[in-house]
Amino acid sequence: MGTVERIEAVADKVAASQQSGNQLVIAVSAMSGETNRLITLAAAIDEQPNLREMDVLVSTGEQVTIALLCIALSKRGIDSRSYTGGQVRILTDSAHGKARIKEIDDHRIRADLDAGLVVVVAGFQGMDEDGNITTLGRGGSDTTAVALAAALKADECQIYTDVDGVYTTDPRVVSDARRLDSITFEEMLEMASQGSKILQIRAVEFAGKYSVPLRVMSSFEEGPGTLITLEDNDQMEKPLVSGIAFNRDEAKLTIRGIPDQPGVAYKVLGAISAANIEIDVIVQNVAKDNSATMTFTVHRNELVRAEMLLKELAVEMGALEVDCDDRIAKVSIVGVGMRSHAGVASQMFEALAKEGINIQLITTSEIKITVVIDERYLELAVRALHSGFGLETEAKQER
Amino acid sequence: MGTVERIEAVADKVAASQQSGNQLVIAVSAMSGETNRLITLAAAIDEQPNLREMDVLVSTGEQVTIALLCIALSKRGIDSRSYTGGQVRILTDSAHGKARIKEIDDHRIRADLDAGLVVVVAGFQGMDEDGNITTLGRGGSDTTAVALAAALKADECQIYTDVDGVYTTDPRVVSDARRLDSITFEEMLEMASQGSKILQIRAVEFAGKYSVPLRVMSSFEEGPGTLITLEDNDQMEKPLVSGIAFNRDEAKLTIRGIPDQPGVAYKVLGAISAANIEIDVIVQNVAKDNSATMTFTVHRNELVRAEMLLKELAVEMGALEVDCDDRIAKVSIVGVGMRSHAGVASQMFEALAKEGINIQLITTSEIKITVVIDERYLELAVRALHSGFGLETEAKQER
Repeated sequence: MGTVERIEAVADKVAASQQSGNQLVIAVSAMSGETNRLITLAAAIDEQPNLREMDVLVSTGEQVTIALLCIALSKRGIDSRSYTGGQVRILTDSAHGKARIKEIDDHRIRADLDAGLVVVVAGFQGMDEDGNITTLGRGGSDTTAVALAAALKADECQIYTDVDGVYTTDPRVVSDARRLDSITFEEMLEMASQGSKILQIRAVEFAGKYSVPLRVMSSFEEGPGTLITLEDNDQMEKPLVSGIAFNRDEAKLTIRGIPDQPGVAYKVLGAISAANIEIDVIVQNVAKDNSATMTFTVHRNELVRAEMLLKELAVEMGALEVDCDDRIAKVSIVGVGMRSHAGVASQMFEALAKEGINIQLITTSEIKITVVIDERYLELAVRALHSGFGLETEAKQER
Repeated sequence: MGTVERIEAVADKVAASQQSGNQLVIAVSAMSGETNRLITLAAAIDEQPNLREMDVLVSTGEQVTIALLCIALSKRGIDSRSYTGGQVRILTDSAHGKARIKEIDDHRIRADLDAGLVVVVAGFQGMDEDGNITTLGRGGSDTTAVALAAALKADECQIYTDVDGVYTTDPRVVSDARRLDSITFEEMLEMASQGSKILQIRAVEFAGKYSVPLRVMSSFEEGPGTLITLEDNDQMEKPLVSGIAFNRDEAKLTIRGIPDQPGVAYKVLGAISAANIEIDVIVQNVAKDNSATMTFTVHRNELVRAEMLLKELAVEMGALEVDCDDRIAKVSIVGVGMRSHAGVASQMFEALAKEGINIQLITTSEIKITVVIDERYLELAVRALHSGFGLETEAKQER
């Protein structure tokens, strides 16, 4: 919910959808910049503001939007009613700033829907058992939408975003990237965790858990968007690989010549985790002399801190050296199809080799293969894989 | 609650008051400009926005302040808890935008006070029986404070304002105007309705009705302020006249030569009221030829509209002419002392006559005498009355 103009655009969409016979419950986010404005006010008073009161403060952002959307609907002659999270009520635990939804009382919403009203709910917020206002944490509006859809057993939960769907990869990198008609929850989770920022991971998990059909759509354009469904749907027509995700937010650290002994991995990674640095890809192997080499990636912002820690550890453990590289990129192919098909990895490596791209690290999961490469070759790699797996045309790949 | 700085200043005051052993419940208003900012957002969508949703919207203003004040208290090591009107809960009727408080549930507040917490409540808002957010209308934060004080049987309700108390008259007009230590509710009501804008009339009425001792204090300076009490207190020492109120917001209309017949007053004033124009002073008399002359005052902003209406009416009723004058001012002396003393009116008229000030209209109530004069003599009149009744020195007047 960016601006008043965007609220008016959403009101138009809601009006059209209601006129075609749908019963609608809308969960909204705050207007652009509003949440940050409120956080800045609090920070001017206390850099570490009281968490309960921060929730009271930032929850006003969505409350403003529900009111404005209902005002816009009312102007269009559509009867609607707004609810804060507490009014619904969306019961959460008491973890202020990152509360989790426990239960949704749907009786007021159902009564309103039965009376022909459009219901507008403030996303991102709830109320704990003692009636305190809670928030679900950033991006929580998507989660609210999914939770409401689950509670109401809605036919579909549509998430309106800046883009018109989920693509085989970023269209800014591959010009013939294709919008997917559908993708599974698992694939979406892997795409999201790999840098595709369309949806909040938590909302997708939630939708998967409660089997809520999720559709990613554009707030601005018409179009069917991308349906995120359970694995089973159209499994027959599922291509081997659904999409290519990538990011260049990470840096690589290597510690070499660690005298190999039990507990080495724990010692290294434990120290990094204890410093609250998140670790992504991890690879370890042992050399002929039984010394171990361990490589892992962290967010680039954490590189300096991680390097200092690792150098101290290296001295302590008698390791040979520590190497850093922040000129790397991570590229993943994602697809539930690869679960039942061998040879996908070699197909991936072949496509990269053809372009002379050296693979620095490899990790795999059931439905994803990730490689770390030199950042300079990122776009080349993404394009090679996109065409290598035939993603520009629908369902044409070898099965 | 103007700015973050002002919130910090209030937090300091609260901290000091709590340390001296007081149990505190604070009702707050929105930050300066916030309510108008929200109203402007809504007006950008619909010039006549849905009233229920306007309350959802504007009530966020006070919600922001309660959170920020609690954050500021928390930084000072003071345990506090914020509540929206609905959370308290402050039960109101369903008249959105001008709701009236029906009942306050004080059990959460009492429990918090008993636990040593400072309680911060969003002013200006409540919740109706169906859980809808309501607002009490502009300036309603004072009313919330008084209602809470009444419900909690508080020792005193302190209203923090831009001024350090109630004065015998406006110090910008009379340099030796004196801060009153106390004033009765009735006097305060008369002062308020005559243009002394320190407190909302409704809050004073409410405080009088429930006998809540009210104290007007400065948010910025130290000092005892002015206590607003029941009539009985210190009646012995009450001066004849407590203060001089005035305003120049009004304009005068006169319709002359109305053929006198029953229902004339109703016909004229009814038509003005029906157009939603508020009428203040009204004077009517009958000439020798039995034709009537009626004069009344309206707010200057309404003069053009009232004049048009009155000219139409004059034709309809066969009246002679309609006169307007917007160069007038209204001056009142207020005091419960005059109830039991004759001669106050003549003392007033004498003071004005000495300065050669012509009186255009006179109205009186039990504790107030109001005159309408030429606007040019307003300051002169106020000063003459202030010294005529000896208001610059305490309790020195003739009784």
